[in-house]
Amino acid sequence: MPQPSQQLNTAEDIERQFYEALNRGDLERLMDCWTQDEDPVCIPPGGDLITGATDIRRLFEALFANAKVSMKVTQTHRIEHDAHVIQTVLEAVDVATDDGPAIAEVIAVNVYAITSRGWRLQLHHASPGVMKPKMPSPQLSPSATIH
Amino acid sequence: MPQPSQQLNTAEDIERQFYEALNRGDLERLMDCWTQDEDPVCIPPGGDLITGATDIRRLFEALFANAKVSMKVTQTHRIEHDAHVIQTVLEAVDVATDDGPAIAEVIAVNVYAITSRGWRLQLHHASPGVMKPKMPSPQLSPSATIH
Repeated sequence: MPQPSQQLNTAEDIERQFYEALNRGDLERLMDCWTQDEDPVCIPPGGDLITGATDIRRLFEALFANAKVSMKVTQTHRIEHDAHVIQTVLEAVDVATDDGPAIAEVIAVNVYAITSRGWRLQLHHASPGVMKPKMPSPQLSPSATIH
Repeated sequence: MPQPSQQLNTAEDIERQFYEALNRGDLERLMDCWTQDEDPVCIPPGGDLITGATDIRRLFEALFANAKVSMKVTQTHRIEHDAHVIQTVLEAVDVATDDGPAIAEVIAVNVYAITSRGWRLQLHHASPGVMKPKMPSPQLSPSATIH
């Protein structure tokens, strides 16, 4: 059962919820991240502009029906104002290619705004980045140091 | 000589200045569009995250040294708040391909914020879109109707 999100009060909370929901394929938790005060905006990698909760829901519904999303997200830049926060992230998305598993690096800009329900996602713009072969996990010895 | 821009007081003015400067290759007018209050952010099509006026200047300096930019811009969506405006635009960029002239459609998100110098560009994120062959200009007869 989804956790209540009314108490979430930072853009970071919503960003965490957004990417957790993406990785879990949890459509309701994902849709709860978006603003309801006005039309939210979503531009998926290589895709067209999508506006409004109904069309955004349709996009992610189709995505979850067709694929299991698996990505690691790193915040790369942040701009903070009283009523909006812009967070730029690097999404390292697991993908299958003819040459085996790979990582598609996607750059995304997420704009959050204060809404009547607290901080919510107003815009998500993800652009296709670099494709890299997935390196096997290192076999760590007890003395190994991770840099 | 660049026109003084201190009196510009809308995000639309800055957006117009930004794209005019791009089409004219006018680096000073282009750089005047960006916020100086904090690090501006630029993500060019297929490129990496660039932050800070110095690196953004270097990017456009290299662009202008290598190409004459020619694009038509159409605003597709707008979100307005007291202190920030998000404008989504379709950039129809003239490009040369092996098959002749073409139009590269780029989707861009521009975030403007109120700064100490009035409205300025805080973030520009352009993602590669669709490539379309450039249609020859229609030969219009006096009775032709354009839909």
